[in-house]
Amino acid sequence: VEIMERIAIIGLGLIGGSLGLAIKRAGLKDVQVAGTARTRDTIQKAKKLGAIDIDARSAADAVRGARLVIVASPIMTTRHIFEEIAPELMPGAVVTDVGSTKGNVARWAKELLPGHADFVGGHPMAGKEHAGIAAADADLFKGRAWVIAPSVTAAESSVQTVVGLAQLAGATPLFMDADEHDSYVAAISHLPLLLSSALFSVAFGSAAWPELAQLASSGFRDTTRLASGSPEMAHDIMLTNSANVLHWLDRFIEELQRFRAVVAEGESKRVIETFAKAQIERDTFMTAGPPQRESGEAIETVSLGDMLLGSKVSGYMKKQQEIIKTMEDRANGKRR
Amino acid sequence: VEIMERIAIIGLGLIGGSLGLAIKRAGLKDVQVAGTARTRDTIQKAKKLGAIDIDARSAADAVRGARLVIVASPIMTTRHIFEEIAPELMPGAVVTDVGSTKGNVARWAKELLPGHADFVGGHPMAGKEHAGIAAADADLFKGRAWVIAPSVTAAESSVQTVVGLAQLAGATPLFMDADEHDSYVAAISHLPLLLSSALFSVAFGSAAWPELAQLASSGFRDTTRLASGSPEMAHDIMLTNSANVLHWLDRFIEELQRFRAVVAEGESKRVIETFAKAQIERDTFMTAGPPQRESGEAIETVSLGDMLLGSKVSGYMKKQQEIIKTMEDRANGKRR
Repeated sequence: VEIMERIAIIGLGLIGGSLGLAIKRAGLKDVQVAGTARTRDTIQKAKKLGAIDIDARSAADAVRGARLVIVASPIMTTRHIFEEIAPELMPGAVVTDVGSTKGNVARWAKELLPGHADFVGGHPMAGKEHAGIAAADADLFKGRAWVIAPSVTAAESSVQTVVGLAQLAGATPLFMDADEHDSYVAAISHLPLLLSSALFSVAFGSAAWPELAQLASSGFRDTTRLASGSPEMAHDIMLTNSANVLHWLDRFIEELQRFRAVVAEGESKRVIETFAKAQIERDTFMTAGPPQRESGEAIETVSLGDMLLGSKVSGYMKKQQEIIKTMEDRANGKRR
Repeated sequence: VEIMERIAIIGLGLIGGSLGLAIKRAGLKDVQVAGTARTRDTIQKAKKLGAIDIDARSAADAVRGARLVIVASPIMTTRHIFEEIAPELMPGAVVTDVGSTKGNVARWAKELLPGHADFVGGHPMAGKEHAGIAAADADLFKGRAWVIAPSVTAAESSVQTVVGLAQLAGATPLFMDADEHDSYVAAISHLPLLLSSALFSVAFGSAAWPELAQLASSGFRDTTRLASGSPEMAHDIMLTNSANVLHWLDRFIEELQRFRAVVAEGESKRVIETFAKAQIERDTFMTAGPPQRESGEAIETVSLGDMLLGSKVSGYMKKQQEIIKTMEDRANGKRR
């Protein structure tokens, strides 16, 4: 990161607070972090934790003289914040955000921020069961992806500033168009959030909940973990990305219906194939990481090809055949 | 646990192996653990890890002279194992199992085991992302529920033996009828497994998977963790508990449709209420634990009453009102 006099953080929850801690830990020379939040209490806690140097009374106060402005407040408050900070931004200021959806924020930036400031949207793919400054952690972003969605007018140096911020926090920058980002996170992040809340709701809403609760183990806890996230964040995600969320929710319900048919039919080989496929594919992903994505050209073809052809497939088919063989032996009464 | 000469463990995967380690760690006087599994390799690994003392060549060999027999093999192999061990069980032998479904196993025990042995079904509510002896862990059952579903003919002392086993492993015994158990775990364990596999499948099956995979964070990993479990276990669960699984899957799909309507309608207050309800209820559950369940009489009424009436409700409504207030302030442009 180039040397800056002031970094402003607006919003000091889990993400804003963690970012403050990460920046302060990096010990940048001649840099001060000014922060503000909705409540005095949060601002004071952030200062006590060492996430900020200067406790600003308002967003306008925080951004005055700042070279880098990080808006880390709930998505739907970002519009108000842009309106509030626009008159105060100094020439050359870089404005970024950390919101879970990027399309709306990009449009608000274009509409409201002055021409002498550059907007470079951001989204660190990190979270935790609990929200708020109390859960802040300088290592929150370590090893995570950090989506960077620059406005078309942003200078290269402004983009590099945000890249530097992501790298300082230990994250891996990943360039993406704002609307493209929104369609992807609907699948990988917003759908899991919705189904996690729906799963908890259906279990809790049952007359058998006292018994179900006794039996809940790590599996139920993990699959419902996202239900404990900030309801405000869920609200803003669902309202700013509803078309994409509904699209993926419908695809997910179709997939559940496919699984339903497999279970209802009860054909042994189809059942084992269905679950073995998910298991082997997930293990491959967890071990080998995401398939390669060559930025710019023929991304999907190249990466899907890696996954679907060549050595990985024979490995996959071999594993699946082994599992099916074990099940057949077992059906024939062979135990070893 | 009373003193026993031999404990037999049939099946040395994650559960059988972990149980062997827990028993051995307890250092029971004059007790030997005999174990067997489908492959020589697994048996040798279990011995090397110290999960068993005696490597038996077959289930019949393992149970000869055993006072307690633990069947820890996949559910659908249990029938074969009962057939194999029935002629070898000594008078007074206690047979238990650890299967994820209990109705079928109870019926097989009644049909196949001799009258001079007692069957007491069991189900420790514990698991891990990875299956197999390599993942075995003496602490796997610590603090978990362990369902005990005795056959109607089992002697009190036989039931106590299995209670002792659960307690030795650090688990909390929980008495339950076998069929009742199966209906509960369909909701709390088998439905999460199914939706976890379906979620991974729908993301992986998308043409955008290379991009989605790059963006996958802890939320996606946690909600799909169960997809990495043993496909054989999933197969046996789905085939031995299909009616209950389908019932809960249908209720879950209805709940998803309810969430879908809330998102599609996009009415701010309803969206925040829906997600805040799940968040507050889950946090209450995670902090305060399951609602009290008074065994025997009026279980549902008493426990549901604890949850839905009295002090917990006013706490709940207060929290929900606070969240809604924050959202209203925010809509009116107040930031603190």
